[in-house]
Amino acid sequence: MGLKSIIVPQDKIFFELFEEQASVVCTAAELLVDIFADYTNIEEKYRKMKEIEHQGDAIAHRAYDELNRTFITPFEPEEISRLVTALDDVIDYIDDGARMLLIYEVKKTDQFMIEFAKCIRQAADEIKTGISGLRTLKDTETIKGCCIEINRLENVADEILSNAIRNLFKSNDPVDIIKLKDIYEHLEIATDKCEDVSDVFSAILIRHT
Amino acid sequence: MGLKSIIVPQDKIFFELFEEQASVVCTAAELLVDIFADYTNIEEKYRKMKEIEHQGDAIAHRAYDELNRTFITPFEPEEISRLVTALDDVIDYIDDGARMLLIYEVKKTDQFMIEFAKCIRQAADEIKTGISGLRTLKDTETIKGCCIEINRLENVADEILSNAIRNLFKSNDPVDIIKLKDIYEHLEIATDKCEDVSDVFSAILIRHT
Amino acid sequence: MGLKSIIVPQDKIFFELFEEQASVVCTAAELLVDIFADYTNIEEKYRKMKEIEHQGDAIAHRAYDELNRTFITPFEPEEISRLVTALDDVIDYIDDGARMLLIYEVKKTDQFMIEFAKCIRQAADEIKTGISGLRTLKDTETIKGCCIEINRLENVADEILSNAIRNLFKSNDPVDIIKLKDIYEHLEIATDKCEDVSDVFSAILIRHT
Repeated sequence: MGLKSIIVPQDKIFFELFEEQASVVCTAAELLVDIFADYTNIEEKYRKMKEIEHQGDAIAHRAYDELNRTFITPFEPEEISRLVTALDDVIDYIDDGARMLLIYEVKKTDQFMIEFAKCIRQAADEIKTGISGLRTLKDTETIKGCCIEINRLENVADEILSNAIRNLFKSNDPVDIIKLKDIYEHLEIATDKCEDVSDVFSAILIRHT
Repeated sequence: MGLKSIIVPQDKIFFELFEEQASVVCTAAELLVDIFADYTNIEEKYRKMKEIEHQGDAIAHRAYDELNRTFITPFEPEEISRLVTALDDVIDYIDDGARMLLIYEVKKTDQFMIEFAKCIRQAADEIKTGISGLRTLKDTETIKGCCIEINRLENVADEILSNAIRNLFKSNDPVDIIKLKDIYEHLEIATDKCEDVSDVFSAILIRHT
Repeated sequence: MGLKSIIVPQDKIFFELFEEQASVVCTAAELLVDIFADYTNIEEKYRKMKEIEHQGDAIAHRAYDELNRTFITPFEPEEISRLVTALDDVIDYIDDGARMLLIYEVKKTDQFMIEFAKCIRQAADEIKTGISGLRTLKDTETIKGCCIEINRLENVADEILSNAIRNLFKSNDPVDIIKLKDIYEHLEIATDKCEDVSDVFSAILIRHT
C-alpha cells in the first residue's frame, strides 16, 4: 500500500478500490447464481463465497484507512464512506443469502431463489458500470441509466418476493415457511442494498456535475 | 415542469413537492384506516392504494430531478434528499401494510390493525402540519410540537405492537402467527418512518433557525 | 440545565452527555447479562431496565436540545446527532431483548442468550472507553482499538446467531422457533447498533484528527 501511494496519485486510489469492490460484488453475485441454479458441492461453493466476502472486507478496510490518511479525496469523505459501506452491504447480503442455505439445511433451491440471484447479478453489473463512470464523471447519462436500471431491478425483486411468499403459504409446513421466508427476504434486501449504492451515485451526480 | 420552473422561483418548488408528498401520505393513511376498519372490496381498495403509491413515487422522482437541476435550494441538498426519502418510505410502508393483507390472504382484520392505522393517520396529519411550517420556519414551536407528537405516536405504536404480539401467541396456529406478526411489525415500522420524517424536521430546525 | 450552561463551557456539555449515555449503555448491558444468567424476578428486573431506558431517553433529549440551542459544538452537529442516536439505539435494542422475554412469556433463557448479553456488555465497555477518548482526541490509537474490538464483537455475535439458529431448528416446535429466533435476532442487532457507534467514532477520527 505504501508503494502504491507513491505511484498512484492519492485520489486515484479510491477509484481503484471502488472498482475492486465492484468486481467482488460481481463475483459474489455470479457465485450466488451458480449456487442456486446448480445446488451441488454446497460446502465447497460456500467456502469460496466466504473467501470472496473476506476479500470484500479487506478492500473496504483499505478504503477506510485511505480515508483516514488522505487529505485529497475525489468526493466528500462522507460520500466515499457511504459508497464503501453500501458496496460492502451488498456483498454481506449475498453472502448471507448463501449461508442461510447451510444454516437452515435447505435440501433444494427453487425458481424464486434463482430469479432473485439473477436479479442481483444484473444489479451487480450495473453497479460495476456505474462505478467505472465515477472516475471522469463525463458520461453522466450512463451513470443515471445504471441508477434507473438498479431501481427497476429492485422493483422486480419486490415482485419476485410477493410471488414467492404467496406461493410459500400454499405449503402448510410452518418450519419450512419460516426458513424460506427468511431466505427470500434476505435476497430481496440484497437488491435494496444495490439501490443504496445507486442512491450514492445519484448524490455524487447532484453534487459534482 | 419546464413552465413551472419559470413561474415559480426555483427554491419554492421544493416546498410544493414536499406538500404534495405530505398530501399523498395523508391520503394513503386515510385509505389504510378505511381498509382495516371496513374490510370489504379489498381488491378495489388496494388498486386505489397502488395508484396513490405511484403518485408518491412520481413526486419523489420530480424532487430528485429538481435537486439535480437546481443550484439554489432552501435547505442543504442532503436534507431535502433525506426528507423526500423519508416521506416516500412512509408511503411505501403504508402500501406494504395493505398489500400484505392480499398476499397473505387475510380473511379479517382486527382491532390492533385498526389502532395502528389510526396512529399512522394521526402521524400523517402531524407530518402535513410540520411540512407547511417549513416554508417560512417562522413558527418553530409548531414544528417542534409536531416532532413531539410524532414521537409520542411512535411510542403508542410500540405499545400496540406489544399488545398485539402478546395476544397473537395466545393462538397456537403458527402459520397465522407468522402472517399477522409480519403485518403488525410492518405497521409499526410505518410509524418509525414517520419518526424519520420528524428527525429531518429537527435537523432542519437545528441548522436553519 | 440553565445553571449547567453557565458553569460548563458550552461544548463541554456534549462530552458530559455522551459519557452519561455511555454509562447508561453499560448499566443496561450489565442488567441484560444478569437477566439472562439469573432468570428470576423478571418483572422486577424488567422494571429496572425500563427505568434505565427512560434515563437514556432523557439524556438523548437533553443532547438534542443542546444541539438546538448551541452554536459552538465540538464536532459537526450531524456527527453529534448520529452519535446520540446510535447510543440510544443500543439502549433500545438491549431493552427490547429483555422485554421480548416478557411478551413471549419465555420460561427459561439459554446459553446463546447469555453469550449474546456478554458480547453486548463487552461492546458497551468499549463504547465507554471510546467516548472518554473523544474529549481530547489525543489518544487516537485507543479509540481505533475500540472500533476494531467492537467490530470483532459484532462478528462474534454473528457467529453466536448462526449457532443459535442452527440449534433452534433442531426443535420442531414452530411457535418456539418464531419466538426464540426473534429474540436472538434482536440481540444480534444490538451489536450492529454498537457498530454504528463505532462507525461514528471512525467518522469523527477521519474529520478531526
